[in-house]
Amino acid sequence: MTPVELIQKKRDGFALTQGEISELVSQYGSGKLADYQMSAMLMAMFLRGLSDAETVFLMEAMLHSGDVLRLDGVKGPKVDKHSTGGVGDKVSICLAPLAAACGVFVPMVSGRGLGHTGGTVDKLESIPGFRTDLEQQAFARIVGETGACLIGQTAEIAPADRRIYALRDVTATVESIPLIVASILSKKLAEGIDGLVLDVKVGRGAFMQDVKNARKLAQALVRVGTRAGKRVVALLTSMASPLGRTVGNALEVREAFELLHGIGPPDLLECTLALGQEMLLVGRVTKSRRVAHDKLVAAIRDGSAARTMERIVAAQGGNPAVVSNPALLPQAPLRIDVRSHRAGFVAAIDAREIGLCALSMGAGRTRADQPVDPAVGIEILAKPGDAVARGEPVARLHVREASVAMAERVLATFRFAARPPAAARLVLERVTARSGE
Amino acid sequence: MTPVELIQKKRDGFALTQGEISELVSQYGSGKLADYQMSAMLMAMFLRGLSDAETVFLMEAMLHSGDVLRLDGVKGPKVDKHSTGGVGDKVSICLAPLAAACGVFVPMVSGRGLGHTGGTVDKLESIPGFRTDLEQQAFARIVGETGACLIGQTAEIAPADRRIYALRDVTATVESIPLIVASILSKKLAEGIDGLVLDVKVGRGAFMQDVKNARKLAQALVRVGTRAGKRVVALLTSMASPLGRTVGNALEVREAFELLHGIGPPDLLECTLALGQEMLLVGRVTKSRRVAHDKLVAAIRDGSAARTMERIVAAQGGNPAVVSNPALLPQAPLRIDVRSHRAGFVAAIDAREIGLCALSMGAGRTRADQPVDPAVGIEILAKPGDAVARGEPVARLHVREASVAMAERVLATFRFAARPPAAARLVLERVTARSGE
Repeated sequence: MTPVELIQKKRDGFALTQGEISELVSQYGSGKLADYQMSAMLMAMFLRGLSDAETVFLMEAMLHSGDVLRLDGVKGPKVDKHSTGGVGDKVSICLAPLAAACGVFVPMVSGRGLGHTGGTVDKLESIPGFRTDLEQQAFARIVGETGACLIGQTAEIAPADRRIYALRDVTATVESIPLIVASILSKKLAEGIDGLVLDVKVGRGAFMQDVKNARKLAQALVRVGTRAGKRVVALLTSMASPLGRTVGNALEVREAFELLHGIGPPDLLECTLALGQEMLLVGRVTKSRRVAHDKLVAAIRDGSAARTMERIVAAQGGNPAVVSNPALLPQAPLRIDVRSHRAGFVAAIDAREIGLCALSMGAGRTRADQPVDPAVGIEILAKPGDAVARGEPVARLHVREASVAMAERVLATFRFAARPPAAARLVLERVTARSGE
Repeated sequence: MTPVELIQKKRDGFALTQGEISELVSQYGSGKLADYQMSAMLMAMFLRGLSDAETVFLMEAMLHSGDVLRLDGVKGPKVDKHSTGGVGDKVSICLAPLAAACGVFVPMVSGRGLGHTGGTVDKLESIPGFRTDLEQQAFARIVGETGACLIGQTAEIAPADRRIYALRDVTATVESIPLIVASILSKKLAEGIDGLVLDVKVGRGAFMQDVKNARKLAQALVRVGTRAGKRVVALLTSMASPLGRTVGNALEVREAFELLHGIGPPDLLECTLALGQEMLLVGRVTKSRRVAHDKLVAAIRDGSAARTMERIVAAQGGNPAVVSNPALLPQAPLRIDVRSHRAGFVAAIDAREIGLCALSMGAGRTRADQPVDPAVGIEILAKPGDAVARGEPVARLHVREASVAMAERVLATFRFAARPPAAARLVLERVTARSGE
């Protein structure tokens, strides 16, 4: 089929075959199908939709456009976690060593921050010496030796997905569930995993703002991932307020390490344990959720999670002492307290707006080629439900220059009330291959 | 609005404003909006549709992307005819001098052939010396002096339409009625006309294969053209069989000139007179269809149509003697008769297949940059309804090389039957601003 015939078929609402989708992706790779043809096809896919079978075909075609990491040498369950992105979401940095300490191998390829959300790779790079650009062989070796390795996307992983994603970004074809699913899974399945736990964030600070769409995305991810032969489960978790008490690269790494030492904030711990249980279950370390929970808690208590993180940091070129000594992380020169104008309870903190504040402080980027400042960010001193006195600090800015406007902008993300808010649930739903659809 | 926001709005089914559509076209012209963004927009327009108002906005934005011909010096009704394209359709070459001889000024900008359909400009260029690439000033002067001028599209006429059309061609976004309407009318309204008569061809040899879609296109053309302030009427005419008795550039010019001398085939004459009546009515030369018909017939009988054509040919650099002496036109070295294998009646001739035969003989092109052979083509000796004896010639090939395969292919376009077919109507429907939608 010619490129025009392929586009026409999808335009007219017909399902594409595996051969046709693989032709589409390979013709795009070879330049036989031009950008303007792929963007017309993407718009047709956006508006006509893709069946689960077509989504699997697209995902596999993108996956096989590059290298699939080989982890044959790693004997044991290989499970990754993927989050759809949020504000203050440092769970990967807590979870990779924690799951590894419990017997799961975690080959984790993460992204960088964009817009109001942060990225695991940017956070990790605030660790002095830590390298996220390892070669495949080193990656496989470190997964085998330490139980986990955390790197960034390489040019060899799903290059077709990278090109198609960049095109979607400039042609208004991003918000399509099948295209999102194919994109996420093509990268994750290139890691050579047996199973995948998905954290689909919902709310103001997330890509999906309402539960209905988030559920649809989670169900599609689980259905398509399962169809592709992987064990996949998804949790819907709240991203109304920032997760934990820090937003910003080095600040979040410090908080993740604190959690591994047993002093993490309750919401971050809850999210980490919930996802960790799923990883142990998917990895078949145990069949019992209770046992999984106890193993995870024990790995924090007995220090094995923190020691695993030290081994990972050392293996990836960083100074392992950083795990116990956060003073080794970059620090911003100024700390400015943001104080409440009134007494009462924190009712809510706008996660998206906090993310945008951190972005404009330099912690994030609006274009893929911008550098980030590892040291700057926001500490949240009062979380929803906390009582505050008038004049009490609710947040602390870690900045390079004092800015009254920024302090006011951060304060404006807090909503106060006379009474404590109803307790909000963090884990909203669990989606499995059985519950999906 | 950014390009992405514009695409998103149409993608989500909202109507674009005049300002937004004019921004879209001007951003595309300046390169601020890339090909891959325009193709995503075109697919969104294809699948979401455009209202009549949006179609007018798009048409006007494309029209004003280039020069609008100024015919202020021409005192009298300025009316053009446009055909959606068929096989053997040389009506423009008959009609322009005929309508001009009856007092209508015809500023005609035509296209070249592509695929199985021929183009008026290619046909005219078979006249030795005839120039279709005149400057605007010469064009306006010749329209004023002779009553008609027939040129090809210039780089200055609706350049945005040319770029967008080329993009649609390679992104499966051609067959959209609003996009077709905007494209046709942007070029035609750039001629500076008061009124337009449309010949929407229907059937095997036409772009629209069935009456329902052809009617929709005709109605949309009339509605949108009327909304843009022009007097517009459309006829639906049959393109089941080739029009007239010739297919091929010089052959068709000869046949058009013969019609001006009163010896044209009945179907070509019927089509020419029907469209001519509409031109005279739209041009308000008369309010009576009967009077219009009589004027046209008289212009053939008294030779004024042929003399008008001679003046046009001379003004455009050709030898006017060609109008009465077709031997001055290029001729192919070989003539090969195609004979019927059986006795009976011609039931049908597949217009599309005849067009493809002429194309592969060299009379047409499959890519815009190919040259055409002016001399080659097909004469149809037996038309539907004609009785033929076994071994009697039904067609004559004008070729440079003998080919048994081509003779067989042409013969295969003829369907024979024991009884004469039911008389087929040529003019199927008339669509006016009142009847349209």
